[in-house]
Amino acid sequence: MRIKIYFFGKKNEITEWEQEYLRRINFRCKCELLPLNQAGIKDDKVAKEKEAELFLNKISDQSFVIAFDEKGKERNSIQFSEWTKKQLETFGEIIFVIGGAHGLHQKVLDRANAKVCFGTMVWTRNLVRLMALEQIYRALEIDGGSNFHKN
Amino acid sequence: MRIKIYFFGKKNEITEWEQEYLRRINFRCKCELLPLNQAGIKDDKVAKEKEAELFLNKISDQSFVIAFDEKGKERNSIQFSEWTKKQLETFGEIIFVIGGAHGLHQKVLDRANAKVCFGTMVWTRNLVRLMALEQIYRALEIDGGSNFHKN
Repeated sequence: MRIKIYFFGKKNEITEWEQEYLRRINFRCKCELLPLNQAGIKDDKVAKEKEAELFLNKISDQSFVIAFDEKGKERNSIQFSEWTKKQLETFGEIIFVIGGAHGLHQKVLDRANAKVCFGTMVWTRNLVRLMALEQIYRALEIDGGSNFHKN
Repeated sequence: MRIKIYFFGKKNEITEWEQEYLRRINFRCKCELLPLNQAGIKDDKVAKEKEAELFLNKISDQSFVIAFDEKGKERNSIQFSEWTKKQLETFGEIIFVIGGAHGLHQKVLDRANAKVCFGTMVWTRNLVRLMALEQIYRALEIDGGSNFHKN
């Protein structure tokens, strides 16, 4: 089983905090944080579309893609754990994608097999990366029966 | 106007990321992140109660206290901004409190004038601190009319 998390930004943006989560997650499941170049274009629409193409070229038709989107489905940590585990078992590999500075293009949202959100608040993209790692780590710990998650 | 955020932990746990948020928030409103000693007791109930007393001794009867609690009210970023601004204008000072390793004691939840949550997921307390700073920063930027928040 394998988890890939794509984000728009540079590898050196990944903080030690995130690296620590990756290290812990990898005890249970191979997990990578994969940078994609930000478009670097001022026009929101053009930038989003360019970034969408970059991402869509990285995945195959069979990939199970999960987009982080404010309008996505909200699950609590237990539900997210059960759901994530089910997708990992079904597809072997799951791919998360986090929007760039301007968010995700509709093409990516349309391609995504599932959309998930962290409540109704808007979060800065670097924080979404850390929050995603925290919930993926928590999800695997819940599934593994550790006492990390306290309800 | 002034914002105080109490957490259970040590001052040196505050990351550079959080310090950067504090620096930015302070352009608009005085804001402090205030550590309280963790109880350091294995028994959950006793630890929570000891921590509750420590916090309750720091505040006055007039303090407007907001607890971060999974069962609290969920607001989107715009709603949180409007609500926070209203409390700041009404009370002059607002006090947030983040639970320790075992969460907040019922005494603190009962004393709180309001309870707020970040969706239905459970987050580790260090991450809640960073998430709180992000939303407070975002709230003040929205209120100040900057273009930081994109809907």
